[in-house]
Amino acid sequence: MKLLNTLAPAAALIALPSLGLAQDGPTPGINPSTDSVFIFNSLLFLIGGFLVFWMAAGFAMLEAGLVRSKNVTMQLTKNMALFSLAAIFYYLIGYNLMYPLGTWMVDGVLSGVWGPGVLEAVGVTSDAADDYGYASTGSDFFFQLMFCAATASIVSGALAERIKLWPFLIFVIVLTAVIYPLQASWKWGGGFLDAMGFLDFAGSTVVHSVGGWAALAGALILGPRIGKYKDGRVNPMPGSNLALATLGTFILWMGWFGFNGGSQLAMGTVGDVADVSRIFANTNAAAAGGAVAALILTQLLYKKPDLTMILNGALAGLVSITAEPLTPTLGSATLIGAVGGVIVVFAVPFLDKLKIDDVVGAIPVHLFAGIWGTIAVVLTNPDASLGVQIYSIFVVGIFTVVASGVMWFILKATMGIRVSEEAEINGLDTSELGMEAYPDFSKG
Amino acid sequence: MKLLNTLAPAAALIALPSLGLAQDGPTPGINPSTDSVFIFNSLLFLIGGFLVFWMAAGFAMLEAGLVRSKNVTMQLTKNMALFSLAAIFYYLIGYNLMYPLGTWMVDGVLSGVWGPGVLEAVGVTSDAADDYGYASTGSDFFFQLMFCAATASIVSGALAERIKLWPFLIFVIVLTAVIYPLQASWKWGGGFLDAMGFLDFAGSTVVHSVGGWAALAGALILGPRIGKYKDGRVNPMPGSNLALATLGTFILWMGWFGFNGGSQLAMGTVGDVADVSRIFANTNAAAAGGAVAALILTQLLYKKPDLTMILNGALAGLVSITAEPLTPTLGSATLIGAVGGVIVVFAVPFLDKLKIDDVVGAIPVHLFAGIWGTIAVVLTNPDASLGVQIYSIFVVGIFTVVASGVMWFILKATMGIRVSEEAEINGLDTSELGMEAYPDFSKG
Amino acid sequence: MKLLNTLAPAAALIALPSLGLAQDGPTPGINPSTDSVFIFNSLLFLIGGFLVFWMAAGFAMLEAGLVRSKNVTMQLTKNMALFSLAAIFYYLIGYNLMYPLGTWMVDGVLSGVWGPGVLEAVGVTSDAADDYGYASTGSDFFFQLMFCAATASIVSGALAERIKLWPFLIFVIVLTAVIYPLQASWKWGGGFLDAMGFLDFAGSTVVHSVGGWAALAGALILGPRIGKYKDGRVNPMPGSNLALATLGTFILWMGWFGFNGGSQLAMGTVGDVADVSRIFANTNAAAAGGAVAALILTQLLYKKPDLTMILNGALAGLVSITAEPLTPTLGSATLIGAVGGVIVVFAVPFLDKLKIDDVVGAIPVHLFAGIWGTIAVVLTNPDASLGVQIYSIFVVGIFTVVASGVMWFILKATMGIRVSEEAEINGLDTSELGMEAYPDFSKG
Repeated sequence: MKLLNTLAPAAALIALPSLGLAQDGPTPGINPSTDSVFIFNSLLFLIGGFLVFWMAAGFAMLEAGLVRSKNVTMQLTKNMALFSLAAIFYYLIGYNLMYPLGTWMVDGVLSGVWGPGVLEAVGVTSDAADDYGYASTGSDFFFQLMFCAATASIVSGALAERIKLWPFLIFVIVLTAVIYPLQASWKWGGGFLDAMGFLDFAGSTVVHSVGGWAALAGALILGPRIGKYKDGRVNPMPGSNLALATLGTFILWMGWFGFNGGSQLAMGTVGDVADVSRIFANTNAAAAGGAVAALILTQLLYKKPDLTMILNGALAGLVSITAEPLTPTLGSATLIGAVGGVIVVFAVPFLDKLKIDDVVGAIPVHLFAGIWGTIAVVLTNPDASLGVQIYSIFVVGIFTVVASGVMWFILKATMGIRVSEEAEINGLDTSELGMEAYPDFSKG
Repeated sequence: MKLLNTLAPAAALIALPSLGLAQDGPTPGINPSTDSVFIFNSLLFLIGGFLVFWMAAGFAMLEAGLVRSKNVTMQLTKNMALFSLAAIFYYLIGYNLMYPLGTWMVDGVLSGVWGPGVLEAVGVTSDAADDYGYASTGSDFFFQLMFCAATASIVSGALAERIKLWPFLIFVIVLTAVIYPLQASWKWGGGFLDAMGFLDFAGSTVVHSVGGWAALAGALILGPRIGKYKDGRVNPMPGSNLALATLGTFILWMGWFGFNGGSQLAMGTVGDVADVSRIFANTNAAAAGGAVAALILTQLLYKKPDLTMILNGALAGLVSITAEPLTPTLGSATLIGAVGGVIVVFAVPFLDKLKIDDVVGAIPVHLFAGIWGTIAVVLTNPDASLGVQIYSIFVVGIFTVVASGVMWFILKATMGIRVSEEAEINGLDTSELGMEAYPDFSKG
Repeated sequence: MKLLNTLAPAAALIALPSLGLAQDGPTPGINPSTDSVFIFNSLLFLIGGFLVFWMAAGFAMLEAGLVRSKNVTMQLTKNMALFSLAAIFYYLIGYNLMYPLGTWMVDGVLSGVWGPGVLEAVGVTSDAADDYGYASTGSDFFFQLMFCAATASIVSGALAERIKLWPFLIFVIVLTAVIYPLQASWKWGGGFLDAMGFLDFAGSTVVHSVGGWAALAGALILGPRIGKYKDGRVNPMPGSNLALATLGTFILWMGWFGFNGGSQLAMGTVGDVADVSRIFANTNAAAAGGAVAALILTQLLYKKPDLTMILNGALAGLVSITAEPLTPTLGSATLIGAVGGVIVVFAVPFLDKLKIDDVVGAIPVHLFAGIWGTIAVVLTNPDASLGVQIYSIFVVGIFTVVASGVMWFILKATMGIRVSEEAEINGLDTSELGMEAYPDFSKG
């Protein structure tokens, strides 16, 4: 995502009083040049927004497919609840925290920004194209919210099958109200990382690594599932429904077109729509590269392709291209994604070696591939500085790990974050929720 | 949905012959100001339409997940068949019944409207932007059809697990060809409810309560499932696949952006696209409010969050905001949706107390929250009259219950609407269809 | 899909130097008439593209639902891998092979077309609206790629449950790199079939029949599953998850709006958007017609509606309308689709009689209905010649069968294409992949 306030030039163009056309005669209700740009830009946010919304369903299906059947209802509950809470708390606190200086507002038009007045009035007139900058606030809010929610979705998968519902949801509230928006403001709110020249187009670091760091802190504090690491061996706990997991991956892949494409933040000029197109094509290429890399690599390493690795390979490819989906060629995008797929194949057993139990592979996909993607910006974008990219990765990482770690410790100390041993063995669905996901089917 | 023919002012603007731009010189093939409006509006219908189409899949998955495994094939068959029949009969009869006076047509351009000539000709020229009003007829038809089909989808869930296929499908034909379009014309076809000032933006009453009333009439006449209410106790019959039910809810949530956003009916001006954006944001907020309300309330009431209540809470939030998704602030939208979630949590056991067996909770979600949403319009829209809203709820309700009830009675008297006791106990899949949904898995 | 280079007239309009508006004064960055057309056209490709992408998920779910549970992981793996390989090889070879004469390029602007330079530069200026023709190359590539991948998806279903993974994937590479693009160039690349007047709007022949022919060649060479045809009887092998199969059908149905609607290739004029609208409505009508025809026909023939036939009936309706979704009226579209549904109901047992084992019904749906749809063009489009349509069906069919057949024979002779008998009986998931799709559930 380009920085919001770097779009000032475009906004200036739009606001030019000498546009001619409008003065030409009675153009009732529409100024074709500026209005169309405003409409196209807002439309990009709306389409991008519902596609990124759809990723919430993707995470839910992926995670429901990768946990064991005794924990499916809990995983579904967490996903539905975390998205809903993110929507409320990003609105109440996060959005305003992320754009604290009113980057979006033009002198007082959006007074009463904090709180319920966040959207522009109903039925604004064409002047709004000048007043509001380059897109409707409602569409921007809608789009930005989905990114915040995605960050929270990343966490839920890693900590599945043993975390209590309510502490997890409280963490989600803090993450979406404070942790995510605060660090996002450093880049996308025009903060110090942005000023330094940090480049992160759609959030390999700002979204994905943050979700990954928060998950890593949680996984370390929570500990592995009972029986996962026993007698020096890694005990596989296969997901209960690979069809759902594959569906979830396809959903995420689809949603990513909105995630990356919408982060162009503009579609109202020939250059912008060509760039959005390029981003769509590159995003797809990177996902394909990640999937094929994992396919080939698991064949070579294990003599059998591993579907869950292929799924995570595709996702890692998507994360890898997210920091810079615009400047690579299709070939570079494919390769950048492929490296993401390779990372996943090696990182999953590596985490197991460290006895860090990440149920769905969220840390390899979102954190490791997110770091890779952030660094890979320097390969194709001449404006990127390797030092600044690495510095920013560290700053965001340290902040997120510390903030998340503190929260996890507080939750652990006060209400406890882990279910009882008995509940974990019996499954969270019956013990915590009293509701099985697949009650009609006998368990093998 | 705003009334179609109240858009005359906009159409008038578009038709203004003095648009200047077009006279400026040789503008080959495109008049930027009027043509863009026409294209944007049509595009809104197309995007909105495929999103509302997607809701058909949402209903199918929700219902397939909430019935027992022995009735899943039947529920899938009903959903696929009802959508297809709705498409055919809304085309043959319903659409013309709903807009009987040719609100959409400009003197004679669409001659031969009844029947196969409903769409404009292939490759119309730019003059059509004047002639056809403000969007293409094909896009409008596509969009309106999906609303009609949604109404039918609502019915199928409530009556699941004991109704015969063919009587249900015959009811769907009557509902989509006559009952829905007739009452919809009272509001959206410019009829008497609209003239009175009834406000129902996207159909809390016109779509959702109508589906709910038809389902209620059917549930009363059909009676509860065998064993559901026994010895004064409510026997839970848990859904067979909560992952599918959750997927269905996410699909419906996504589709609702088209449902409500598309009902702005226009996107070609700055004001319209800002309103559509506002609607997207509010729709999402209401769903989140409904889900969180159900989450918290079931925790408080039952000590355990109830996923099916959370899913229905989100849907009730969506239904609640549907009558007025534009005027509320984000905060109001969240609260309006939250009330919907509360309604569901209390209404589901309330219906059970009355021994009205609604398999998926369609009546609480679509009827009760639909009534609430219709009333809630007065909270944020100063043009709304509480009296008119309530009057309209009653008029539509009485009409739908009577018309549906008559149909259900006729079907019951002639061909019977309920499967045999043996078939119900064995499950409709084997008894009625000879095809299991999950044949490879042994039943618990 | 209209032929790309027949759009020259539109491009000429766009390039007209006398557009007036642009000369009117300082219009900074946007020329409302030509730029809007370029943006709308590119947007159509992007929306159409992500909808057709979504069909990859639809095929995966349909096929995962229609195979037995012991082969689900393999089917998911194939679908994820084939899409990814198609993305890479269509980029590397196919796209350039399909448009060999640089139909898309304007003198030298896209130099270095072959290979990684396929997309236009980042941030092109408004002049690109003149230079590039009528839409961004990135959006066109994205859209075209999805059609190529769909062709490969068709093959995987027919050959399920007994083909080895790697030979199948090698076939996919050849299909997407060479076979599909080569024959597609004859029509859509401006080749000899196009010159003869062959009409195939969105690919009943170019996409669907090609997938179907390739599948047929494969099925003949591969042979039926063990036990499918035994002692003169057809042994039913029911799909393991009809909910997934239904979901897949809904996904495909949704994606088809992009498939057919996007193939208008333009949305920037009133006429084009009205045509796209008409296509959306007709596409939906044909699917409904196909589903209802199969519903009624299976009721009449077997006394019980058959869900898998209804699903395939809807898909056959969609394939049937794909060659000409624009010129039919809604009524004609419904009937054209209905004939597709009838074809499926008779073709499935017909193939069984010939002992051609097509696991998911891909040959009836995509090949037989594809042929029907190609012929049906003459019913509503006066420009179509029955002779040319039939000739083209034969040419494409013979080419595809021969090319595919040679590939299958080479693969059979070199690495073998069929798993061992033991592996087939035990299921491909455990024997070939060591990973079950539903490990928690005991098999019936």
